[in-house]
Amino acid sequence: MADAKKTDAPILAVTMGDPAGVGPEIIAGAWPSFFPNGASGPAFALPKSRPVVFGDPQCVAAAAKLRGLDARAVPVDSPDDAARDYERKFGPNAIPVLPCCGADAARVKYGAICAEGGEAAFRALSCAIDAALSGSVDAIVTAPLHKEALRLAGHNYPGHTEILAERCGVSDFGMALYLGPCPAIASPTGLGVVHVTLHESMRSAVERVSYESVLEKIGLLRRFMTAILGREPRLGVCALNCHASDGGLFGGEEREYIAPAVETAREQGADVRGPFPSDTLFLDAKNGLYDGIVAIYHDQGHIAIKLMDMFAAVNVSLGLPIIRTSVAHGTAFNIAGLGIAKTQSLIEAARVAALFALRGETP
Amino acid sequence: MADAKKTDAPILAVTMGDPAGVGPEIIAGAWPSFFPNGASGPAFALPKSRPVVFGDPQCVAAAAKLRGLDARAVPVDSPDDAARDYERKFGPNAIPVLPCCGADAARVKYGAICAEGGEAAFRALSCAIDAALSGSVDAIVTAPLHKEALRLAGHNYPGHTEILAERCGVSDFGMALYLGPCPAIASPTGLGVVHVTLHESMRSAVERVSYESVLEKIGLLRRFMTAILGREPRLGVCALNCHASDGGLFGGEEREYIAPAVETAREQGADVRGPFPSDTLFLDAKNGLYDGIVAIYHDQGHIAIKLMDMFAAVNVSLGLPIIRTSVAHGTAFNIAGLGIAKTQSLIEAARVAALFALRGETP
Repeated sequence: MADAKKTDAPILAVTMGDPAGVGPEIIAGAWPSFFPNGASGPAFALPKSRPVVFGDPQCVAAAAKLRGLDARAVPVDSPDDAARDYERKFGPNAIPVLPCCGADAARVKYGAICAEGGEAAFRALSCAIDAALSGSVDAIVTAPLHKEALRLAGHNYPGHTEILAERCGVSDFGMALYLGPCPAIASPTGLGVVHVTLHESMRSAVERVSYESVLEKIGLLRRFMTAILGREPRLGVCALNCHASDGGLFGGEEREYIAPAVETAREQGADVRGPFPSDTLFLDAKNGLYDGIVAIYHDQGHIAIKLMDMFAAVNVSLGLPIIRTSVAHGTAFNIAGLGIAKTQSLIEAARVAALFALRGETP
Repeated sequence: MADAKKTDAPILAVTMGDPAGVGPEIIAGAWPSFFPNGASGPAFALPKSRPVVFGDPQCVAAAAKLRGLDARAVPVDSPDDAARDYERKFGPNAIPVLPCCGADAARVKYGAICAEGGEAAFRALSCAIDAALSGSVDAIVTAPLHKEALRLAGHNYPGHTEILAERCGVSDFGMALYLGPCPAIASPTGLGVVHVTLHESMRSAVERVSYESVLEKIGLLRRFMTAILGREPRLGVCALNCHASDGGLFGGEEREYIAPAVETAREQGADVRGPFPSDTLFLDAKNGLYDGIVAIYHDQGHIAIKLMDMFAAVNVSLGLPIIRTSVAHGTAFNIAGLGIAKTQSLIEAARVAALFALRGETP
């Protein structure tokens, strides 16, 4: 893991995401939970931290009203301005917001896919990345953006992760899905999932499975879950093919690439097994037999995590020089503005970000 | 649907599966539930039927003892022999068993992958297929066999389905997974899943997705769920690629094959939508928005069904001239002989088989 600045009350840049989506309202709804004496505590205590919204004060104020909260949005000049004397100035009823979305953000309608929404989300994220790279915030926690809106605003990226990687000048990066402790899984310490391939066609995913890519992702997952658990994690690796190819009957990738990568990782000291058929492996993980799973392609891991509990899930960027976590759900335009979006994923994302920041480690 | 013989108390051939696995003990454990006054009724009443075990009397008797049941295994000469005066001769405490596994079956050790176990499973299945084709039983309900044991016995098939298709002389067949009503899903009528591709490599699955194959499977699922529900089912179709290719960014199969097939099926009167990203589609199905899902490849459907509730799931052969259902789980060699294997899937499999037999329809 790269070193991050160690702190005893991390400054978290919470980006607002697309103002047409549920971003502003989950931030407002989760806000009281970010403080020890907040209205509704999270299931697992958030370490002490100093969250600052990177977004638009008007949007945040409107969202607080929407959630029926008595909370003001207080504009700040900079993260340093917010951080100074934080406890006295901010808390469950006073939300520091760094205005960085431009003037159009507050005019965006809920549920509308538009360039203004995409631009606002992009600016908030850019500003947060700058702040994280310069060390004026300790971690980034992102609310959802909308890919099509982003594209309408002239920014062509498949998602947050690729923007972060480009801005951080990193090519070798990954994404973990982390399912926090929740009733859906037996393990009291959650379940991490890393994908060997992600936003690409299945055809491309099949081509790109290799000894190196599997070994690299086992390493990323091992480091990540070791940091979460404070011990060696029990890892499992999915097969690409059904029935783990049944001894070569349904494909050769298991024997050729995946099994040798697992073998090497074991020689390096990892507690890792596989490749196993993904349908039974995720069931075993749900039943608490694993701390982390390497999935070969996007849907393999995402079907499993979403069915277990998508609202307890968090997205964590791996291999970046900064700490960044995110909600695992999307903009949910269909319910934006109703004030009913679940806040659990954002609270869990903040918890994981603060946890790494307190350790002075990036995932 | 093909016509089957209509009956008011279907004769169900319940095949024993591999005697080294949990087959015998789930049959013995489920047995009382097959009768209206049985010890433990299933969640949803099994229609009146006359189950006959195709297997080995000694194995069945040992399994009944294992489950702590006071039930005898009564050898019968033929399905007709069992069917004649069934209610007087058989019931919760008297299990008719047609011996058809050979002498070695009773010597097989629990948990051992061996040719004798594979041969016993194959013989029981063959005998049941003959009986179904000749009309002396109305449906087949299969307990699990083990592919490797099957291969050791000289029978090279990826699974039950392919044996059935070959013996029935059918090339255009399918398999549905049907998740019976259970707490894991919101729908009170269960969820059906049909796969466009099944036991093949992911590389081959990607190649074989076509307009024709998707359209055919929508049709199979529609017919199957119409029979289960007695009304037009609400169907969804998975994308092959993550994010349903995001407008072509991650592959072209959605636009080229899947969407046109959905369009044609709609023109034919089906209530079907898609292609949608599989991770959100299965979540919507869990939440009761769909009666059936067309999955593109094996693990897509199997990860979802197994995580929802693999023990409520049933395997149903589609497009055969006979009715055949099966448990959706495997031989579970690791717990065979402990008497703890869950019986719900077998009970549900018998329910679905009896349901089709009563209608005189094959799925």
